[in-house]
Amino acid sequence: MGLDHTLVGVPSEPQERSWDSKDALLYAVGVGAGLGDPLQELEFTTENCEGIEQKVLPTFGVLIAQARPGRAFGDFDRAMLVHAEQAFELHRPLPVEGTVRTTATVTGIYDKGSGALVATENVAVDAATGEPLVTSRSSAFIRGEGGFGGERGPSGPRNVPPSRAPDKSIAMPTRPDQALLYRLSGDMNPLHADPEFARMAGYERPILHGLCTFGFAGRSVLRAWCNDDPARLKSFEVRFSGVVYPGETITTDMWQVSPGKIVLTAKTERGEAVLSSSAAEVVA
Amino acid sequence: MGLDHTLVGVPSEPQERSWDSKDALLYAVGVGAGLGDPLQELEFTTENCEGIEQKVLPTFGVLIAQARPGRAFGDFDRAMLVHAEQAFELHRPLPVEGTVRTTATVTGIYDKGSGALVATENVAVDAATGEPLVTSRSSAFIRGEGGFGGERGPSGPRNVPPSRAPDKSIAMPTRPDQALLYRLSGDMNPLHADPEFARMAGYERPILHGLCTFGFAGRSVLRAWCNDDPARLKSFEVRFSGVVYPGETITTDMWQVSPGKIVLTAKTERGEAVLSSSAAEVVA
Repeated sequence: MGLDHTLVGVPSEPQERSWDSKDALLYAVGVGAGLGDPLQELEFTTENCEGIEQKVLPTFGVLIAQARPGRAFGDFDRAMLVHAEQAFELHRPLPVEGTVRTTATVTGIYDKGSGALVATENVAVDAATGEPLVTSRSSAFIRGEGGFGGERGPSGPRNVPPSRAPDKSIAMPTRPDQALLYRLSGDMNPLHADPEFARMAGYERPILHGLCTFGFAGRSVLRAWCNDDPARLKSFEVRFSGVVYPGETITTDMWQVSPGKIVLTAKTERGEAVLSSSAAEVVA
Repeated sequence: MGLDHTLVGVPSEPQERSWDSKDALLYAVGVGAGLGDPLQELEFTTENCEGIEQKVLPTFGVLIAQARPGRAFGDFDRAMLVHAEQAFELHRPLPVEGTVRTTATVTGIYDKGSGALVATENVAVDAATGEPLVTSRSSAFIRGEGGFGGERGPSGPRNVPPSRAPDKSIAMPTRPDQALLYRLSGDMNPLHADPEFARMAGYERPILHGLCTFGFAGRSVLRAWCNDDPARLKSFEVRFSGVVYPGETITTDMWQVSPGKIVLTAKTERGEAVLSSSAAEVVA
């Protein structure tokens, strides 16, 4: 019973994953590219427009770099797990198709009292060249698995917005069917589609995938600070702090706190913060 | 130069095509299933909701049964071709995954004066059992290829609505990014995404795929007359008479003209008829 603490620091076997142009297009539409204005972001949603070269949204890097840890975390109720934080760095822009080999390592299991925070780092390298492509870090909070007397891990305020009004703010509506579309990029968890399942998990209806919200916020940073050029987004990190119901509007507030360093939060029209303690590094 | 009239009646070699559950889900979201209410039509948009068995939208049968004629139609400007009519019969409900072998036959090349109407019939049989699954009939109008002294072919009014108000009418909004999503089901023609290409073809911006409009109208018939049960839609035929711009609302007006026989038209908020002379056979 409980988490397997001997996992920490043990890298998984490399796991191979391939994607193609259509996977990247489906992901882009899944995180709302082209929804506001279908003539904008055509470099992300199409592969054959005259004079427009297909590019890949940086946040797709997190999907590319998904892999299972070397062993299961242990024996616990999966329904107690929530995605708490997600970050990535791109070592170069993502190609429209490719194959990576990804190694996943649990980097820490922290004791938060009411639960455990399991932190994982995935490193994806180009399968052909061995060059690093994506480093992805995420953490999951597992209710009921704390109290084992371990370290609390990193804490304290991080990426706190200045007290001034946001330097830039972008509102992007999601569609009522956004989760039904986003799930086709691979995360078929019924929490995002099945009303009964969502109700049992304590939600009034199915919720949007955290990584879909992440994709909307990533597009907002790209739009606001990078002129939609994926090569200019170097890293991105978020803390998931609330849920989005499909059909709600995600407003991303952004502050430039130093050259190239953007702090951001995101909320819905209910006022609930859905991303907090979040930041991006961009090439100014 | 010109069309190859010796093609008529010559069946193509059988062409194999497979699809899986995810293809059917992507198609369903592509034609707007779940857009109005994501909790409705879950049998078409999901495969793992508790107590809901995945089903396939009948109009997906037209995609399954796509195949090329035995030889190219001849030497003509593809930009002069428009999809004029589309019909299909389902011999049984479509499975969520499968493989068909489809034979395509040009059944007539008619002389319409300003152009030629090329009619094609595709028959798709289950590759494993040889049982017929879908018969699809379509016609394409090719401007500039008429005047060869051939028969005019079938003409005169067909599927004319009664003069009374529609018995049922369903309005379904499309999304601004509907064509960007629908194209991922296979028709990547840049007319539906590339603004320059669309302008050169005479449209103010990219237009929705005719077969996407067809899918919305099919869902309206299914909703209005079949309680969303695909087994109750036996056949469906439409004439494409106008374009839909992504983001417009498609309103399908339907009349029951005899038991199980529905005549229908569809229009957008611009008032333009986008489907006319159209009909469906349903199990009442």
